[in-house]
Amino acid sequence: MASLPPTLLQSSRRARLVTKKKYLKKDWCKTEPLIRRLREPGCRSRRVIDRFCYGQCNSFYIPRESRRRRAFKSCPSCLPRRWERVSVLFHCPGQVPARRRRTVKLVKQCRCMPRRRR
Amino acid sequence: MASLPPTLLQSSRRARLVTKKKYLKKDWCKTEPLIRRLREPGCRSRRVIDRFCYGQCNSFYIPRESRRRRAFKSCPSCLPRRWERVSVLFHCPGQVPARRRRTVKLVKQCRCMPRRRR
Repeated sequence: MASLPPTLLQSSRRARLVTKKKYLKKDWCKTEPLIRRLREPGCRSRRVIDRFCYGQCNSFYIPRESRRRRAFKSCPSCLPRRWERVSVLFHCPGQVPARRRRTVKLVKQCRCMPRRRR
Repeated sequence: MASLPPTLLQSSRRARLVTKKKYLKKDWCKTEPLIRRLREPGCRSRRVIDRFCYGQCNSFYIPRESRRRRAFKSCPSCLPRRWERVSVLFHCPGQVPARRRRTVKLVKQCRCMPRRRR
């Protein structure tokens, strides 16, 4: 082959090392508050503070030498990492009972993480 | 509720709008060359230029008001978008035939894109 540019990486393993150490800048994933209005039929709605996630996570895909091996791959996204369950009381005038509780799951903290396999 | 900070978003739809327009900076996804050594039993190895992907794609997760609705979610990663199939000739001294061809799939271009469902 003709002489190659000095930065041309020589193997998949080297590419993975350089990618992790040098190429990918700091990733980030924010957790921000959000008002969420909860509704229950016949009751007054309640507002709670939920949270949402947004960010830029590092991802890469590096093919391997051998056909038999899967590529080096990392595909995290900014997603909820922790949740909290909260019990919310609704006032339902004219109904029996006049008060009703419901448990709701709220986002507590986001982080760059792999998607869950379903 | 006590007075809320001015930036506290009032709904999931608003959060999605603000996230897309304002919060998420420009994403990026690079395609870089990589030497890949192909081996075939009893033949001289061949080197080809493959490519690998790395970058930072925008992702978000925004819960919806109603329990019945899935969250607004976007989870792309820097992955191969286009491939190319290349026919590679191997020299296999002492074998019959002395030359052998094999088709190999190489990464051509990477882009922030959703993972494929399998």
